Amino acid sequence: MNDIKDRIECAAALAKVTTAEAAAEYIKDDMNVGVSGFTPSGYPKAVPLALAAKVKAGAKIKINLYTGASVGPELDGELAKAGAINRRAPYQTNKDMRNAINNDEIKYTEMHLSMSAQNIRYGFLPNRRGIDLAIMEVCKIKDLGNGQVGLVPTTAVGNSPSYVQTAKQVIVEVNTTQPVELEGMHDLFVPLDPPNRKPIMIEHPWDRIGTDYVACPLDKIVAIVPCDITDKTRPLGAIDDDAKHMGQNLVAFFKKEVAEGRLPKNLLPLQSGVGSVANAVINGLVNSEFEHLTVYTEVIQDGMFDLIDAGKLDIASGTSLSPSPECLKKFYANLDKYKPHLLLRPQEISNNPEVSRRIGVIAMNTAIEVDIYGN
Amino acid sequence: MNDIKDRIECAAALAKVTTAEAAAEYIKDDMNVGVSGFTPSGYPKAVPLALAAKVKAGAKIKINLYTGASVGPELDGELAKAGAINRRAPYQTNKDMRNAINNDEIKYTEMHLSMSAQNIRYGFLPNRRGIDLAIMEVCKIKDLGNGQVGLVPTTAVGNSPSYVQTAKQVIVEVNTTQPVELEGMHDLFVPLDPPNRKPIMIEHPWDRIGTDYVACPLDKIVAIVPCDITDKTRPLGAIDDDAKHMGQNLVAFFKKEVAEGRLPKNLLPLQSGVGSVANAVINGLVNSEFEHLTVYTEVIQDGMFDLIDAGKLDIASGTSLSPSPECLKKFYANLDKYKPHLLLRPQEISNNPEVSRRIGVIAMNTAIEVDIYGN
Repeated sequence: MNDIKDRIECAAALAKVTTAEAAAEYIKDDMNVGVSGFTPSGYPKAVPLALAAKVKAGAKIKINLYTGASVGPELDGELAKAGAINRRAPYQTNKDMRNAINNDEIKYTEMHLSMSAQNIRYGFLPNRRGIDLAIMEVCKIKDLGNGQVGLVPTTAVGNSPSYVQTAKQVIVEVNTTQPVELEGMHDLFVPLDPPNRKPIMIEHPWDRIGTDYVACPLDKIVAIVPCDITDKTRPLGAIDDDAKHMGQNLVAFFKKEVAEGRLPKNLLPLQSGVGSVANAVINGLVNSEFEHLTVYTEVIQDGMFDLIDAGKLDIASGTSLSPSPECLKKFYANLDKYKPHLLLRPQEISNNPEVSRRIGVIAMNTAIEVDIYGN
Repeated sequence: MNDIKDRIECAAALAKVTTAEAAAEYIKDDMNVGVSGFTPSGYPKAVPLALAAKVKAGAKIKINLYTGASVGPELDGELAKAGAINRRAPYQTNKDMRNAINNDEIKYTEMHLSMSAQNIRYGFLPNRRGIDLAIMEVCKIKDLGNGQVGLVPTTAVGNSPSYVQTAKQVIVEVNTTQPVELEGMHDLFVPLDPPNRKPIMIEHPWDRIGTDYVACPLDKIVAIVPCDITDKTRPLGAIDDDAKHMGQNLVAFFKKEVAEGRLPKNLLPLQSGVGSVANAVINGLVNSEFEHLTVYTEVIQDGMFDLIDAGKLDIASGTSLSPSPECLKKFYANLDKYKPHLLLRPQEISNNPEVSRRIGVIAMNTAIEVDIYGN
């Protein structure tokens, strides 16, 4: 067990530090388990691996797994292979899980990612229970006093605030591969539900409306587990000539819109899809004359870091940092430089139609083919 | 010409009163014309008929027609038959126009109805001009002083505020079949465009955030035309046994959701589709135990009036009043009773995803078949 004491400010919390195997004992058959993570970033790793091992060894446990979106192989892959999943929502991209879903071994519901947290708060899960147990990866546990701790997220926010807020029990994974200096890069806000909901007061991508930690009563936390397994972000394809041309076309289009008065000089907040092509298109802006660009998107990838390097990006707001492994290293090594330009929010807010419509995002996505069967 | 003097508070405006034929002279070939109206309610009638007659008599005029949504036969029907339309957006349901569109005689673009006003403000029309001429049906013209008048809408708001605000010239139809007492039933607000847009501060269907008239500089108004042609709203089908059962099922579902704590006792704001079945389903609530219901929808039809009669509806907010001809008569004859329960807004606001998501509408629509070709 690696030493996580310097990441836990609260003395009473230290008593809850235990092993992944001991923590996995809290996970019972048919539980609704809500976890941190969005793309292969910021998801719990040690406890899911311990659960998968336990089920492979014969334990009769099938959980209902609710995430932010897709997560890494230690979670979706290992639990699917172990047969430890009954239901799964709101999104996934793992091959083993897809096969299990298509074989009717796992019941899968795809949901609008911005609506998954409120659906769960509303009590809309199939078994009409809320989240029984939340598992959240953090880089630090703060002492808020009065029996409350502050859980500081890592490279993704996803649905963590709502899962922790509504769960009966919480397991915390303190991941020592995630720099403790990530603290301050998050803005966490859970709206009230109708009929009491108020406007989400974001008018610009840099606006902050919440806390930079998830508040949690210490007595809901049943286990704190150290983890030294890294995020498994994926490499992005090289930027080929086609992608370069797409980027140039995009820049030419933007220049014309600005010249004719239909866009401000620094454009409007960019919202970009995920993957190699989307990343390459964003990269086209690196070699443009545009400055003071802003981004209000879901997943932040390499192109955004290139824009920061070029001094062209003021702020990128998203719910997940999912750069290539190489770029993730660059980010960790230069946190002071990148952190002021990055802001991670719950997916309920990053993907919210209220905010997207208000701030007027320039939404871009890429699809050459759509496979409605293979997921 | 019927006497409209008592509906025009502003002496300087009186000098602009003229005939529909004289007003139609302001409509030139290739103009972008933006009109009031949403469903066969609140649309201009006299000037379009005069334009259709002029084109049928040989005038070479084809306009680009932008409305709220579908409108009445005097507008879409007569102009399509006359061959007086080049482009049409954002929505229509007229048979003659559909045929002309399918024969490639009219270029048609269907748009999200909440986005049409902002697309036009953005300068996104195909010819890259804004609205050249707006035609708005009103029940009254107020004197706001300082060379400004207030145009009071009738049975629909649609896109009137943005069309009048952005148009170079405005023609006003004062419709004497529309009671002057409609004044006060509207809440008109045009958001700023990004990057300056602020939250739309509606938290409940009854919230008011704007004026009850469209402000317009008097010198933009080129003609004021009297009109005594009625709205051509359509009869609704009788409520048959199937529809009654649907209504009963809906009520049973709501009761269960309330009993299990997933909905407040008076539900959440209802959003209902248009037409006989949707209307019948809403009618099911008339015989239920629910009280203090609220509605945040697009088109207000007979079922809402039945709910008001039963004392069960606090407020219905929409962009158009489109009851059956029989119910419209009932409304006109009992304005004092119904007006406090009705509020008409621009379709940009009634159909806005920011507000719908925030207030948590219960959205219901009906489709037994979808025809993606025949419109």
